[in-house]
Parts: sequence; C-alpha cells; structure tokens
Amino acid sequence: MKALVKEAAGPGFVLKNVPVPTIRDDEVLIKVRRAGVCGTDVHIYEWDDWARGRVKPPIVVGHEFAGDVVEGRCLLCRTGNAHVCPFTRIIGVDRDGCFAEYIAMPAVNVWHLDANVSYDIGGIHDPMGNAFHTALTADIPGSTVLVTGCGPIGIFAVGICKAAGASRIIASDVNDRRLALARSMGAHDVVHPGEAEAAVKAVTDGLGVDVVLEMSGVPSAIHQAFALVRVGGRVQMLGIPAKPMEVNFATEVIFKGITIYGVVGRRMYDTWHQMTRFLRSGEFDPTPVITHRFPLEQADEAMHVIKSGEAGKVIFEIA
Amino acid sequence: MKALVKEAAGPGFVLKNVPVPTIRDDEVLIKVRRAGVCGTDVHIYEWDDWARGRVKPPIVVGHEFAGDVVEGRCLLCRTGNAHVCPFTRIIGVDRDGCFAEYIAMPAVNVWHLDANVSYDIGGIHDPMGNAFHTALTADIPGSTVLVTGCGPIGIFAVGICKAAGASRIIASDVNDRRLALARSMGAHDVVHPGEAEAAVKAVTDGLGVDVVLEMSGVPSAIHQAFALVRVGGRVQMLGIPAKPMEVNFATEVIFKGITIYGVVGRRMYDTWHQMTRFLRSGEFDPTPVITHRFPLEQADEAMHVIKSGEAGKVIFEIA
Amino acid sequence: MKALVKEAAGPGFVLKNVPVPTIRDDEVLIKVRRAGVCGTDVHIYEWDDWARGRVKPPIVVGHEFAGDVVEGRCLLCRTGNAHVCPFTRIIGVDRDGCFAEYIAMPAVNVWHLDANVSYDIGGIHDPMGNAFHTALTADIPGSTVLVTGCGPIGIFAVGICKAAGASRIIASDVNDRRLALARSMGAHDVVHPGEAEAAVKAVTDGLGVDVVLEMSGVPSAIHQAFALVRVGGRVQMLGIPAKPMEVNFATEVIFKGITIYGVVGRRMYDTWHQMTRFLRSGEFDPTPVITHRFPLEQADEAMHVIKSGEAGKVIFEIA
Amino acid sequence: MKALVKEAAGPGFVLKNVPVPTIRDDEVLIKVRRAGVCGTDVHIYEWDDWARGRVKPPIVVGHEFAGDVVEGRCLLCRTGNAHVCPFTRIIGVDRDGCFAEYIAMPAVNVWHLDANVSYDIGGIHDPMGNAFHTALTADIPGSTVLVTGCGPIGIFAVGICKAAGASRIIASDVNDRRLALARSMGAHDVVHPGEAEAAVKAVTDGLGVDVVLEMSGVPSAIHQAFALVRVGGRVQMLGIPAKPMEVNFATEVIFKGITIYGVVGRRMYDTWHQMTRFLRSGEFDPTPVITHRFPLEQADEAMHVIKSGEAGKVIFEIA
Repeated sequence: MKALVKEAAGPGFVLKNVPVPTIRDDEVLIKVRRAGVCGTDVHIYEWDDWARGRVKPPIVVGHEFAGDVVEGRCLLCRTGNAHVCPFTRIIGVDRDGCFAEYIAMPAVNVWHLDANVSYDIGGIHDPMGNAFHTALTADIPGSTVLVTGCGPIGIFAVGICKAAGASRIIASDVNDRRLALARSMGAHDVVHPGEAEAAVKAVTDGLGVDVVLEMSGVPSAIHQAFALVRVGGRVQMLGIPAKPMEVNFATEVIFKGITIYGVVGRRMYDTWHQMTRFLRSGEFDPTPVITHRFPLEQADEAMHVIKSGEAGKVIFEIA
Repeated sequence: MKALVKEAAGPGFVLKNVPVPTIRDDEVLIKVRRAGVCGTDVHIYEWDDWARGRVKPPIVVGHEFAGDVVEGRCLLCRTGNAHVCPFTRIIGVDRDGCFAEYIAMPAVNVWHLDANVSYDIGGIHDPMGNAFHTALTADIPGSTVLVTGCGPIGIFAVGICKAAGASRIIASDVNDRRLALARSMGAHDVVHPGEAEAAVKAVTDGLGVDVVLEMSGVPSAIHQAFALVRVGGRVQMLGIPAKPMEVNFATEVIFKGITIYGVVGRRMYDTWHQMTRFLRSGEFDPTPVITHRFPLEQADEAMHVIKSGEAGKVIFEIA
Repeated sequence: MKALVKEAAGPGFVLKNVPVPTIRDDEVLIKVRRAGVCGTDVHIYEWDDWARGRVKPPIVVGHEFAGDVVEGRCLLCRTGNAHVCPFTRIIGVDRDGCFAEYIAMPAVNVWHLDANVSYDIGGIHDPMGNAFHTALTADIPGSTVLVTGCGPIGIFAVGICKAAGASRIIASDVNDRRLALARSMGAHDVVHPGEAEAAVKAVTDGLGVDVVLEMSGVPSAIHQAFALVRVGGRVQMLGIPAKPMEVNFATEVIFKGITIYGVVGRRMYDTWHQMTRFLRSGEFDPTPVITHRFPLEQADEAMHVIKSGEAGKVIFEIA
Repeated sequence: MKALVKEAAGPGFVLKNVPVPTIRDDEVLIKVRRAGVCGTDVHIYEWDDWARGRVKPPIVVGHEFAGDVVEGRCLLCRTGNAHVCPFTRIIGVDRDGCFAEYIAMPAVNVWHLDANVSYDIGGIHDPMGNAFHTALTADIPGSTVLVTGCGPIGIFAVGICKAAGASRIIASDVNDRRLALARSMGAHDVVHPGEAEAAVKAVTDGLGVDVVLEMSGVPSAIHQAFALVRVGGRVQMLGIPAKPMEVNFATEVIFKGITIYGVVGRRMYDTWHQMTRFLRSGEFDPTPVITHRFPLEQADEAMHVIKSGEAGKVIFEIA
C-alpha cells in the first residue's frame, strides 16, 4: 500500500509502498479514507527539537483519520457496539469465574495491588468498590450520614464515610451483630430501624441528615431514607427492593428538593484508584468485616452462613 | 486445577478438576489467592429465576478475587503500569500512523461513526475533540465567551460554543481570513487583538466574559485572557506558549478568583460521544473549517499551506 | 466603649474611648468577645501602600471576631434562624402580593432587568426561573431530551433546551395547542404520550434519552420518564403527582443507574443571572408562551382560562 | 391603589382600593407593570385544602411580576448594582471594625454559633473560612495533599484535610515551630521546602500529589506546586506573590492538564455551614493554632509577634 513515511532523521516525508499491516487479536485493520494534517505532523516533517527527541524513523506518519474497518476479529467492534461489551461477559456469571485455582482475565481489567495489601483485602475489592462508589458519589466530608442496612457493603460504607470525614454516622439494621460491626467501623450511633428517626433528629437540629445510603432494599427503610434526609439532601439507593412499592413523589421527593442516585456497579478505574488511596492512608481498614473463611471444599457451608443473615463478608481461601 | 463449577441447570456447585485456562494475547493468567462470596453467587447456587435466565452451565463461578499474575504477555500490566500505557504509543508519532492506505488499530480505540457522517468530518475528529474538550469542560450555555486565536481548533470551538448556547462569542485573531471563518461558524463579534478589550467590555457591562478559550499560546493573548475574564470566571488554556512568560498571580489570578484549566488531549469516549450528539443535531457543522484537500502525493504542499497561516483545516484524501 | 482606632494617615493604632455604635433597622449590635488579628491588620497598622490607597481614617480596625448579639430588631437573627427566613414569607401567599398597583419588596430581592427586557417578560421571570433551574441543573449541551408535559413551564423548558444546544428535543402532551407551542419553541418532535416511546427509540439508537424533564405530575408520564431515560441518565421531576403511586425502584431506578432530582423553586440569584444571559443572547424568546392578557378587573376570566387547560402563560396588565 | 385581594376564607378574589404600602429601611416600593398568574394563584382563588392551611386573609395575592422601583433608600438597588454591594464595605477596612467593645453588623451577616463553640474559635471563623474554602473546593477524601506554607491558614488547612480523609498530607515551611503545629494538626510529613520533592515522590509512586494548597505566595513554592502536583491534579492558590514571576505555562500547566483555582475569600454561608459541621464532629479542633492572646491595650505586641514569623494565630481577648 501507499504510505507517507518518515524514513530517516531529517526533514521531509517520503511517499512509498509498504506492506499492508498485519493485525493482532485485539486489533482491527482499517482502510483509511480521510486524514487530517495537524501541527504535530508539521513538527515531524520539519524535524524540530521535539520530533528529534520523540520520533524513531522509519515510521508511517499521521494520527487524525477516518476510514472503514476491513478486517477485525472482534464482533462488537465490527458492529459499532464496543461500548456495551464490558457489560455482557461478567466472570462467574457469563464466563468462567474465580472460584478456582486459576483464572484467565483480560489484561486491561487487571488492577495492581500495593505490596502491603493482603490477598484477603484484595479478594473483596469488588463489593468494597460498590461501597466506595455509593458513598463517595455523595459529598461526605463534614456531612451527617444515615446508613440503612448493615450487610457487608453497608458496613464497608460506614468505614469509608468515617475515613472521609463524615461529621456523624448513624447506622441502622435489625441485626445486633451487624450493628456491632458497624460500630467497630466507625458509626457514631447504631440503632434499630424504629429508633432511627429519633437518632437522626437528635443530631441534626431536627433537620435530617445530609446523605442517606440505602443499602437494604427494604421498603420501610426506603421511606425512612426520604423522610430523614434533609431538604436538598441526597439519597444513594444500592439496596434492591424485591417488588414495586408505593411512593409519594410530591412529599417524599419533589417538595424536599432531594437528589436520588440509583447505584449499579462502580466506575472501573476511578473507584479502584480511590480505594487504593484509602487503603494506603491506613484510616480505612475493612478487615473486621470479614467474618468467615472457607476452603473451596466447603462451598455449601459458605452459602449457608450467608443465608443465615449473621455473617459479615465471607471469603474462600484458595491458595 | 480445582474449581467450583455450576455443572448443570439446578441447585448447588461441584468442586472438580478442570484444565488450567489458556490465554489470548490480551489476557493474563492469574493464580487466585482469595475470593469473596457475593449474594449473586448465592442466587446462582440456589438456581433462582434470575440465574436460570442468565447463567449457561457448565461454568466456573465467582467474581470477587485477588491473586498473582503468573503469565501475561503485556509488560505494562505485569508491572502495574497499565494506566500509563495509552500515553506512550501515539499513532504517527510512536507507532505507524494514518497517512497510508491501511492502518492497524487496537479494536478498543475504534469509534463507530454514524452512517451520515462523511469521511471528511470523520477524519478531523481528533482536533475537533480538542475543541470539544476545551469548550465543554467550561459552562457554556448562556455564557459570554472570548476565543483568543482562530486556528482550526479555535474555529471549531467557536462553532461548538454557538451550538451549546453561548449568549455572546467574541473571536480574536490577527488574520482576517481566520476571522471570516470564525464569523461563519457563529462568532457574534470578530476582532483583532487590539480591539478585544473594548469588544468584551461593551457586551458584558464592563465585567468581562464568563469564559475565555485561549487557543493561541501567544503571551499577550494569555494576559488578555486573565484581564478580560470576569471575577470568578474560567480560562481554558490550549494554546502552547513557546517559552516562559511573566505573570502576576496576585492581580491576574488570585484576586480575581478565577479557575485556569490546562487542556491536554481530550477524554477518550466521553468526548467522542459528545461530538456524535452535536453532529447528529445538525447545529454544529465543521465543514467550512476544511479549507484545503490534498492527495498523499502532495504532502509538501500541505505542509506549506499550514505554515503560511492562511489555512483552516487541511486534510489528505486517500481513498 | 474602648476601641482600637486608626486615627490618622500613618503607622500605628490608638486605643481610645468612642461612642457605642447606633444601629439601623437591618443591623444588630454585638458585644465583641474575641477578635483575630490578620495580616491585613498588620498592613493597616504599618500603613503600607495598599492601606494608604484603601483605608480612610479615622476608623475602628479589625474584621475577625465572635461575640454576643445584645440588641437587634430582627427576631430571626436573634434566634439563630436567619437561614429559614427566606422560605417563610412568600409574597401573595404569606404577605401582600403583586396583583396590585404597588408592592413593597425587600431591596435585597430586587432583580434589575436590562433596558430591553419588556415588562411582559419581566412579569414571568418566576415560572421561567423554575424552567431554567429544571433544565440547566441537567447537562443539556448535545443531549437528547424528553419533556413530558407542556404547560407553561414545560414549554419554557423546551425553548431553554433548544437555546442550550440539546441535540434532540421530544415534547409530549395530550393537548395539541400546547404541542404546537412546544414546536414553536424548538421541539424537534411533538407527540402524544402514547407515541413517546417510539419517538425516543427512533432518535436514540433505542437507548433512551440522556435527560427527561418531567413537568406533568401524571403517574404514567413518571413511569415513562424512568423507562425512556437511558442507563446512567437523569430525570428532573418538577410536576407534582396528586397522590402516592407504585414504583419499581429495582428496575426503574437502581439497575438503570439513573439520577432523580426533585425540583422545588429555583436558585435565587444564580438562576436570575442565567436567565438574563439567555435573554440577552436573543436565542431564547419566551414571548410566544404568553397566550392571554387581562386587566385586574378580569381576574375571574384569567382563572377560568387557566383551568380550561388550553392556555399557555396568562398575565395581568396592570400599568 | 387597586389590588386583587383575598378578603375572606372562601373562593374568589375581590378587586378593591387599598393604601399604597409603606416601606421599611431595607425595602423598596415598586410600581407593578405586569404580573403572571400561576397555578398557586388558582389554588388560593379556589380556596382548596392547601390554601386553607397556608393563607391568612385578608391579603393581596400574586407573586410573579415586573415593574419600576419608584422609591427606595438603597442606592445600590436603585442603580441595579446590589450584587457588588458585599464587596465594598469590609469591616475594619472600609467601615468600623471589631477591635472594640461593640460593633454594629448587618443582621443578615450574623452567623449563629453552636452553644459549645468557644469565643476563641468563633473569633477566628474568618481565616478558618479561607482555609475551608481553599481545601474543600478540591476533592480531598482519599487524596494526597501538599500544603506549601504553614502560616495560620495553612495550618488550619492541614487539619481540615486530615478531618476530610486525605490519605497523605505533606506540609512544607521554612519555620520549625510552624511545622510542629502542622504536625500536631495531622500532617503525616513535615518538611523544609528543599525536602518537599523527595517527600512527595516517596509517597506517590513518583507521580505527584493529587492536590497542592499553595498558602505561601513565595515564587519558588508556586513552581514547586506545579512541579509536584500529578498530571490532571489541582493547585489551589491562596498565598499572594508580592510581584510578577516567570511561568512556563506549556510545561508547568498545559502539558500536565492541571486545574488552578485562585482563592479569594470564601463562600458566605456554604463555608460557615461546612465549618459548623466539622466543628460539631469533633475531628477538627483549631485550638492549637491559637498561640498568642492579648488585650486591646497590647496591640503593638500583637503586631510585633505576627511580624516575627513565629506565631500561629494571634487573637485579642476583649470581654
């Protein structure tokens, strides 16, 4: 094919025949139709100081273009649907998962852990990520926070709010073991749902909390979230209600001027980066949330203890 | 290796020996150390309605884990430096570029164009992306905007501000052809630098503009940006000054309470998505900015016209 | 009382007896307990260039302090409740309103209109403010927008989205006159509610719109808002449902990762400032929305036409 | 004058003659020209449940209007310049200040302190406000932060970053007493300027800190801020350089893609509210920063100790 080539260290380009590129598994071959000429190309053409220090001839030049994909092994890219690709192959759901001695992962999905982060903590980055995303997409420093529901993600969220400077954290759950874990992660007040309103009113001049993290999915907790958040506050909804429920949007949402954020998953690299920084600071330690450990051989026992409602986070020790 | 497998459509998991996974070019092999057990795993274990509709046995289960990378062909991932990878292999600078009939591209970098977007417009997505990122990381709807410097990216930015509802756009340049292009893209006022202050004062009650897009890199234009932005306003700096210059941070920046944003590149997919939406609306048409077209054979002419300072955007027509 | 006084143009302060200050209606008298000394005080003490140009002796110095309010005519301030004051005395609801030849207003609430803004447009700044706040607290430039409900505020919002660079605006209502107004304000598509889904799918690759402005308060429209906003999109709720309704938070909100914002009122000065800028640009003209004008003598007729559902905005012409 | 009046508890309005309103010192009299009719007016007209519970007849109705200011004692409002008023009369600079036994203050400026906030802490809300505004307009939770300059505001900022969950705080100053104060407020590392680069590199994998708070105004510290902030990071500039300095915008700002925010003052009520929440949480205690206390009689001593560079915050004890 024809190509404009920077052949050697000196001014100018040469138009010459070169082989059509071969592609790797993760590349596509594109027939170029139009290409823009940028000031950067002029620098390379002129062979100025910057070009001399950066470009290694021989090389085909140009970086602005449009064309047709003529060969590519990735179906999604050929159909212009690359953007939905990440959502369709969840490990352990849609492709082989990690309850095994080895797993193959796309390199781009690997997140490198600091040397001092244990495998235990590494192994729970996924649910901690949900907790970080839920907490830190609200404005936590200085805020008063109500956490309704103290399963593992709710308890992580308590610790994150504590490390991020929440001025008051009220954690609510029906289970006293979980409340004890929430207390150990930094909750100032731990209450049963029936006591939440009084606790919130007492520490917010009766105005309600700045932020509610709704981690239970229980309808009465969702109504409590709307009732106990202050005017103009924010409700983060992570807990998933099992079925439709009745809501008074006028009094529960609109007249209060609140924002509701439906939390699904987490931001890929932004959230991992946030977690890494919190773990480094030493002010957030999720270790107490891990209450049970099993080998793969005891999968049934692991399922059983989760279903009992008494567990914090349960993990497999594999190697 | 050992793995916990969902073998068939029904409750439970089976621990069994399966082959260690083979990996593709873009994957790594990980020795799993710890794995968290999630409510999702319980759903799959129980084989409830959701699991029945989503999971296709046989499959290894589990999706929360940490471990060691034991095999992987990507150096950057092995060293935990994947995040800097995108910056190191620019096409046409660090690897073969697009001034050629064909180019090999990582599939993940491909952006699918709408059927009605011409190759001409497709070919200039890169510099338009700079313009979109520069303009739309400021708050443009309703704002008064000064654009200092009307090279191709500055002119694109004028058109973007127009489409995004800027209430007044003043474009400044030394070259009348470029000012005419800026006018055709929607600038309300086109001025030479010496007239910019009077033009800004006249349309802002003497207060200064809400936003300055500094696209020239000329020191006098940078001082003008600081002088003509209003108190609390925003200066986006894309133009690159050739050398250090003197600045009075007290009077030009701090006492004015302004924000300065240094623009380098653009956000990968967010910016492409924004551009696609603007192109679809039909209210932003960059076509007039393309002033010259050449075949690859006339590379020297293309370089010449850019260096003359009289051109808008210059492109190669390749196929 | 004792006070530290800058008596004359020169270095130093003098401690001397001066009269206790008298206060105006909108001031309070404070007994000072502690006062911080700032670098600014040092400048004044030293009588440097800055101080010489700014300070006019004789003057009591100091600006950081805490103390006790000993006299003040404003009840709210004396009880520490100044922050709730703005919400409690709405004109025409809690104190005398504007359907009259004259009205007394707190000076601080006055917003000065540009000379070329008509009284007609000035008179409807309040509901336009709701529309601006509803539209522009979402990210409109380049976005696809569905407006459900084309009463006056909905129609204003259509025009604002148009001026702010929405790439596609679909307006939905049951009333054809209102749809015609929405079309004249810039809606690309005007549809009856039963046609909204098809219209949205057709222009968004089936993904749903980036933003829904829910201006009707009708339960079926609210469900449509959740159904037709894209994953990760935003629903602004201004319309007020008359009673509770059933919602499936799991499928309508959480799995879609959307944000819901309950809109009540508008930001005082920020919103007025935005409106002023849009009116100046000439790209937003709300005039067509005013469909009926009456003298005060025809108040009954004004009420009647609003209740008929056929009116855009109705105004009184008073002087 | 004519006015539309809700005379009694029941449906309808009555047009009747009522006295022209008298105005207070802080009010203006407006001749009404146009008034919009809102759904709220219809509710009051109809005398529905909401109106019955809220409106107390007799009252003139209407709340959307435009007209002419015909009488008003406030010069700024008469000239449409109310928005610049707050900046022109600083206490202790432009009008009598607080180094005195009593001070008259506009009631609207009063911020009510919690009962458990001491006069000492109350008296330094002004400079603490600068520190809060400087720190919390950046994203602090989890961030690495470099504070260059440990005068009182810099030291406050260290404590605020600590309470807000910064993962690592490096404080830099030439004075060891100030560094000791910074350490006591929570800095993880305290260094002399010549050691700052090594300290930053050591704790950020060599990438630089997420945020720099530049509190010194010293040119070498400003260059250090640009050099030691990471790519895409944020520099908050509060310290005021005494004169112009040379900057390389290309390498120090643009290629790094950083944001610079010039800090002047603080947000009036938002910042006070933030401070109140942090003080309530007990995790931010500014008391150690107050190093010297004087009666008004020792003003010269107060000036002297500040100029020595050895003091933290200096206050007057007045009553």
